[in-house]
Amino acid sequence: MSGNSYGRLFTLTTFGESHGAALGAIVDGCPPGLELTEADLQVDLDRRKPGTSKHTTQRREDDKVKILSGLFEGKTTGTPIGLIIENTDQRSKDYSNIENTYRPAHADYAYDQKFGFRDYRGGGRSSARETAMRVAAGAIAKKYLKETFGVEIYGYLSQLGPIELDCKDKAQIEQNAFFCGDESKLQELNDYMVNLRSEQDSVGAKVSVVATGMIPGWGEPIFDRLDAEIAHAMMSINAVKGVEIGDGFDVVSQKGTEHRDEMRAEGFVSNHAGGIVGGISTGQDVLVNIALKPTSSITTPGRSINRQGENIDVVTKGRHDPCVGIRAVPIAEAMLALVLMDHCLRHRAQNAAVVPPLPPIPSQL
Amino acid sequence: MSGNSYGRLFTLTTFGESHGAALGAIVDGCPPGLELTEADLQVDLDRRKPGTSKHTTQRREDDKVKILSGLFEGKTTGTPIGLIIENTDQRSKDYSNIENTYRPAHADYAYDQKFGFRDYRGGGRSSARETAMRVAAGAIAKKYLKETFGVEIYGYLSQLGPIELDCKDKAQIEQNAFFCGDESKLQELNDYMVNLRSEQDSVGAKVSVVATGMIPGWGEPIFDRLDAEIAHAMMSINAVKGVEIGDGFDVVSQKGTEHRDEMRAEGFVSNHAGGIVGGISTGQDVLVNIALKPTSSITTPGRSINRQGENIDVVTKGRHDPCVGIRAVPIAEAMLALVLMDHCLRHRAQNAAVVPPLPPIPSQL
Amino acid sequence: MSGNSYGRLFTLTTFGESHGAALGAIVDGCPPGLELTEADLQVDLDRRKPGTSKHTTQRREDDKVKILSGLFEGKTTGTPIGLIIENTDQRSKDYSNIENTYRPAHADYAYDQKFGFRDYRGGGRSSARETAMRVAAGAIAKKYLKETFGVEIYGYLSQLGPIELDCKDKAQIEQNAFFCGDESKLQELNDYMVNLRSEQDSVGAKVSVVATGMIPGWGEPIFDRLDAEIAHAMMSINAVKGVEIGDGFDVVSQKGTEHRDEMRAEGFVSNHAGGIVGGISTGQDVLVNIALKPTSSITTPGRSINRQGENIDVVTKGRHDPCVGIRAVPIAEAMLALVLMDHCLRHRAQNAAVVPPLPPIPSQL
Amino acid sequence: MSGNSYGRLFTLTTFGESHGAALGAIVDGCPPGLELTEADLQVDLDRRKPGTSKHTTQRREDDKVKILSGLFEGKTTGTPIGLIIENTDQRSKDYSNIENTYRPAHADYAYDQKFGFRDYRGGGRSSARETAMRVAAGAIAKKYLKETFGVEIYGYLSQLGPIELDCKDKAQIEQNAFFCGDESKLQELNDYMVNLRSEQDSVGAKVSVVATGMIPGWGEPIFDRLDAEIAHAMMSINAVKGVEIGDGFDVVSQKGTEHRDEMRAEGFVSNHAGGIVGGISTGQDVLVNIALKPTSSITTPGRSINRQGENIDVVTKGRHDPCVGIRAVPIAEAMLALVLMDHCLRHRAQNAAVVPPLPPIPSQL
Repeated sequence: MSGNSYGRLFTLTTFGESHGAALGAIVDGCPPGLELTEADLQVDLDRRKPGTSKHTTQRREDDKVKILSGLFEGKTTGTPIGLIIENTDQRSKDYSNIENTYRPAHADYAYDQKFGFRDYRGGGRSSARETAMRVAAGAIAKKYLKETFGVEIYGYLSQLGPIELDCKDKAQIEQNAFFCGDESKLQELNDYMVNLRSEQDSVGAKVSVVATGMIPGWGEPIFDRLDAEIAHAMMSINAVKGVEIGDGFDVVSQKGTEHRDEMRAEGFVSNHAGGIVGGISTGQDVLVNIALKPTSSITTPGRSINRQGENIDVVTKGRHDPCVGIRAVPIAEAMLALVLMDHCLRHRAQNAAVVPPLPPIPSQL
Repeated sequence: MSGNSYGRLFTLTTFGESHGAALGAIVDGCPPGLELTEADLQVDLDRRKPGTSKHTTQRREDDKVKILSGLFEGKTTGTPIGLIIENTDQRSKDYSNIENTYRPAHADYAYDQKFGFRDYRGGGRSSARETAMRVAAGAIAKKYLKETFGVEIYGYLSQLGPIELDCKDKAQIEQNAFFCGDESKLQELNDYMVNLRSEQDSVGAKVSVVATGMIPGWGEPIFDRLDAEIAHAMMSINAVKGVEIGDGFDVVSQKGTEHRDEMRAEGFVSNHAGGIVGGISTGQDVLVNIALKPTSSITTPGRSINRQGENIDVVTKGRHDPCVGIRAVPIAEAMLALVLMDHCLRHRAQNAAVVPPLPPIPSQL
Repeated sequence: MSGNSYGRLFTLTTFGESHGAALGAIVDGCPPGLELTEADLQVDLDRRKPGTSKHTTQRREDDKVKILSGLFEGKTTGTPIGLIIENTDQRSKDYSNIENTYRPAHADYAYDQKFGFRDYRGGGRSSARETAMRVAAGAIAKKYLKETFGVEIYGYLSQLGPIELDCKDKAQIEQNAFFCGDESKLQELNDYMVNLRSEQDSVGAKVSVVATGMIPGWGEPIFDRLDAEIAHAMMSINAVKGVEIGDGFDVVSQKGTEHRDEMRAEGFVSNHAGGIVGGISTGQDVLVNIALKPTSSITTPGRSINRQGENIDVVTKGRHDPCVGIRAVPIAEAMLALVLMDHCLRHRAQNAAVVPPLPPIPSQL
Repeated sequence: MSGNSYGRLFTLTTFGESHGAALGAIVDGCPPGLELTEADLQVDLDRRKPGTSKHTTQRREDDKVKILSGLFEGKTTGTPIGLIIENTDQRSKDYSNIENTYRPAHADYAYDQKFGFRDYRGGGRSSARETAMRVAAGAIAKKYLKETFGVEIYGYLSQLGPIELDCKDKAQIEQNAFFCGDESKLQELNDYMVNLRSEQDSVGAKVSVVATGMIPGWGEPIFDRLDAEIAHAMMSINAVKGVEIGDGFDVVSQKGTEHRDEMRAEGFVSNHAGGIVGGISTGQDVLVNIALKPTSSITTPGRSINRQGENIDVVTKGRHDPCVGIRAVPIAEAMLALVLMDHCLRHRAQNAAVVPPLPPIPSQL
C-alpha cells in the first residue's frame, strides 16, 4: 500500500478512479517563485486527451485541471500544489457487464487477488485515466526545468506495430495525431490503424523521449541512479513492458570499442550511453525508449474465467484506443520530467559541496 | 545524495569503494526467526566471485562475508543485520595512472562533474565491486522467500554478443562458467571469448531472471508497481542499459489477440506479461531480461580528455572481465529477490484487509 | 520541501492555505474493505470546527468534507482516498493589512526567510486551518483501529492557563465546549475565558490524549520508535511546544524504584511509562501530553518590524481563538491515530515472523 | 521493521547489539570535500564513553571508531561513510540470568512481544550502547554545520533529580563529569550521587541542548517542521520521556502578551519560541530540553514475571549508570546535529528558488 507517491524532494501523489468523482494530485516540493497558471498544465493535458483523432478512443473527457493551492499572485509559494480534474463523462453502465469477469491482460484478476475486490467501473484505479495527473504534474516540472536550467523534454512515436519511425523533423511531431516525426509515414500509419480497427484488434508501440540541454552531475548512485529512477518511472506507466537508456538492448551485441562514447575537448564523439554513465548525467542528451503492449480491450472474444473460477468468453465493449502507445507520448515526457525535477533538487542539496564542479564539455560534436 | 538504500520495509544500505578498507551493508527489516548463517550468503558470493574462470578478471577477492549483528542463536532477531567484506587484493598501483584521466564509458567524468573529485582507485564507488553486498543481502531475501512462500529465483545468460542462448536445462546453469542453460553452446561461447580477448575487446550480454512459485497480489500501484520496482532495481546494476518484463520490446509489434494471456480454470494459457499485470503479480512466473553493455575497460586505446580538458589517448590496464554480463547473473537474481522481499512484506501489511483474497488459479497450463 | 506527508504505510499528504480555494488531502495505504462514509469523518471535523462556542473564533467554516476516491459500494478499495473541503468563508480583506508586516510569534517572518515571499491571507499555509485535513484522515485511522483491534483514542483538556483539569469523568468530555472531563471546573474555565477576552489577551493549554485497548509490539526501534513517532506527530501540530509520554518531565525527579512499572501475572502494577518501553507498545494505555502556546493573534499592540526591517507596532485583527489549545483536542487525537495506524500496518508486515508473539498480560491491575 | 535509519538527505543507518561483534553505521549524504578524520569522531565518542568517572558504569569500552569508506585523501567523497566500533568488553555471562526474565522498565517484555524472542545479552539492540553510532555520525554533522554555516551545538545537564542546574558558564561544561555549567553545584551533585548509590537506586535527569549561529529558513512544514523532527530525534534516544522546544510546558500558563517574541530592527527581544516558529528556524538560538527517566537497572529487587508469565522477583546485576541522563548530553547534541544537517541540505535543495531569501535580522538583543 501507499505506493501512490513518486519522488523524494519533488513529490507527486495522485488519487482517483476512472469513474470516480474526480482525479486529483498533490505536487509537493516545487520551489517558490515559479510563475504558473492552469493553462501551463492544460497544454500537455490536451495533448494526452482522448477523442482528438479517429485513432483514439471517442470517450470524451475535457480533462480541465484546476489548481487549488500552492499559488499566490501567479507564482508558486513552495507549499503543496493541489490539482483536481472532475470526471464528466462517466457512462458507468458501459462497464457493468464486467463486474464478475476477468478480462484477459487487464488488471481485473490481479486487483482482486491483491485487494479482495475492486471498483470494476472502467478499470477503476488501474485505468490509464490516472495518468492525466502525471501529465499535469509533469508540466510543472517541465516548466521549472526549462526556465531554471534550459533543460527541455520531447517525445515521439518511434514504432507502431511493424512500422518503424525515425524522428526526421522534430517540428512535425505536434502536427499529426501520431506524435510522429516523419511526415512521409503518416499515410502508412493511418492505413494501418484503419485496417487494425476493421480486424477488431489492437497493437503495441514504441515511444522515445529525449531531454536536451542537460546538466551534468544529476543522479544519486548507487540505487537512485538517474537511469534506475527513469526505468522506475517509465515502467510505472500503464502497458509499459520495457525500458531502454541510450542503445538499450542493442548493447548486447556491441563490442566495447563500438559502444564507448569517446571524448574530445570539443565534446563527446557519440551518445550510445544515452547521456547517463555510472547513474549520473554527463550533460549529453538523455535518450529513453519504452515498449507499450497492445491495448487489452478489444472486441474479439477471448477465453477467461469469472470470479467463481468458471470458464467464460469475454468481449470488451466500450470506447478504447486501438494503440495506447500513441497517447503515451506526453505521459512518458511527464515521467521523465518528474525524474529530472527530483534529481535537480537532490543535486542542488549537494551543492553545499566544498569542491566546486568542473566545467562541463559540450554535449556532443 | 543518500541514494545508497533500496527498499521500503526490507531495506539494503551499502557502503564501500573498490579499493577501500572494506565493503559493508546493513539489511534492515528482515523478520525475526529466520535461520541464517554466513554460509547461506557465501554461496551466492562465490557464484559472483571473480577469478573463477579464465573468462573473468583474474583479480582475486575472497569476498568472505561476516555477519556482525542481527543474529542470535542462529536466527534473525528482527534487528538490522550488519555485513562486512574486507578488501584483501587492493593493488591500487594498477590504477594510479588514471588519476587525471577520464576513461571513455567509465563513470570518471560523471563522478567528477557530480562530486568535484573522486576516489580514482579502481573506480572507487562506481566499481562493480559494490555489487558483492547486493548479492549477500539478496541471499537473505532468497532464503526467506523460499522458506516462507516457496518462491524461488534463478537466472541465466540468455545472450552473449551475437550468441543467443535458451535455457534448455536449468540444471546446466551452475555446471559451467557462463551460467548457460544450453550445454551445446558452451564450446561456441568459449571460442568467442578467446577470440574476443585476442582482439583486446569486450562485448555485451543479456541476462534473464525468473521467479517461480509466485504469490499473486504483490506490488503497489501506481508508482510502486512490482514491474516498476524491478525495473528500478535492475537498472541500478552497473552496465545495465535495458530492462524487459515478459515479452518486453517484442510487444511493440504484437497484436492484442496475440499478447493477451487468456485464462482457463486450469490456469493461464500463456505468459506474455511475465507474471505481472497492472503492476501486481498474477501468480505466474516473473520473467525479467536485462541488457548489459560491454566492459568499458579494454586495452585498445581510446580517445578521451584529462581533467584539464585536453585531448589524450587512454588505455585501460588492469584485470577486467571481457564480458561483465556473465557475472551479473547472481547480481540480477539478488536484485529481484530484494524487490520481491520488500513487496511480500508490504503486501503482508495489507493483510489487515477485511476482505480475504480469492484463491489463485494455477500459474500456467 | 516535500514535508507535507506523514506516515510510511498509511500516508497522509495534505494541501491548502487558509484562504485558498480548498483544503485537500490524500490518504494512501488504507486497507481495503473498511466501511466508510463522509459522515464518519464529519463527526470529528465538527468537534474541531470553529464557531461552536463563544470561546472559539466566530469565523464560520462548515468544513464539509467530500470523499473523492478510494471508496466503492461503501467500502475502501485499498486505493488512495482523496479528500476535499471547499473554503466558504474567506473574507481575505481582514488580512490585507499584514501583507508587509511580521506579526510577533506568527510564522510570517520565518516563511519569508524560507520561501522569499508568502501567501499572507490568514496565514496561508501556516494557518491551523490546515489541521482540518489531519482530523479527517485521523477519523479513518480511528475507525480502522477500533474495528480491527479494539484500540480507541480520546483526548481532553488537562490544563488551561493556571487551571489544572483532571479527567474525572470521560463521559463529560463531549458535554462541554472545553473538552473538559471535570464538570466542577466548567464555571471557573468560563470565567477565566471571559476575563481573558476582556484583557485582549490569550493563554496556553495542555492537552492529554489516551489510546486504550492497545496491542503490544507496535513501534520500530531504534529511530521509528512508537514514542519518537508520536513526538514527531504531536510537535507537528501548530502551537505545540512540548510533548510528554507517560510521566514525561516528572521522571526527571523520580527514583528508579519509583518509576519502574512492576509486573504481575495479573498485569502491570503501574503505568509511568505511558504504555511504551524501548519504543514499543506494551499493551498498556498510551498516555500523551502536549503543551500549546497561547494564541499569537491578539489585539494588544506588539512591537515588530516590516518587510523593510523597519520598527512598527502590530495589532492583529480578525477572528481568533483566545486559546488554541481547546480545539487542539480532536487534532491531537487524530495525530495519535495516524501514528498508531501506520505502526499497526508496519507491525503487521512483520507478522511474516517465523516466531509467533507471546500472549500479552493484562494492560493494568 | 526497517526503523533503523534517520534523515532524508543526510541519512544515518545503524546496526549492532550490546554484546554483538561490533556496532556499525552508514552515514549517507555527506557532501563531498569535507575534511574528516577518525579523530574528529573520537572526541565526542570519548565524551560519551562509560567508565570516565565514578558516577558512570565501570564497564569499559574503548569505543574506538574506524572509518571504512567515503573518504579519499582526507576528504569526504560524497559517497556513504561506513563506520565500525568493535565490541571489546562483552562479559555476556553477566547477563545470562535474565534470559527468561522480564526486568521492570526494561524493553525485555516489549521486545519479546514484538519479535517473539530476543538477544538478551546486555539488552541486545535495546541497549544504550547503540547510541555510540549516533554520536559518531553526529560529529560529522557538527563539523559540517560549523565549517559551512558557523552553526555550533552544545549541551549540558540542566537538572539531576531534584537539583536544578543553570548553565552559568559554558566553559565549565567540559570541566566536570556531569556536563554541568555551574561549578558551585558540583559538590552537591557528587554527594547526591554517592548517596544514590548507597541507596541502590537511580534517578532521572533533564538535559538541555542549544544550537547557536542558526540560519533562518530551515524546516519543512507541515509535517517535517524543524521542531517536529527534533522531537522525533530526541524521543528516539533511550530513556527520553519528554521533549520541549523553547519554553516548552511553561507555555501552558503563559499569556500571549508574555510569550510572543517581539522584534526590533536590532533583533528579537526574547526567545520563548526556542528559535523555531511555524516549524521553521528564525535564526535565533534553537533551545531544546529533554527528560530522561531513571536507570532501569538497579540492584533493589523488583516484582516482575518470567517468560512463562509466573510472578518472580528481579535484581539487575551488572555495571550500570545510576543516572543515564549524564552521558546523554553528547547523544542529544548528536541528534540535534543530525536534524539540522538534514534540514540544511533540504533547504539548500530549495535554493533553486527564483525568489532570493530576505536578509535576516540579528538573532537576539
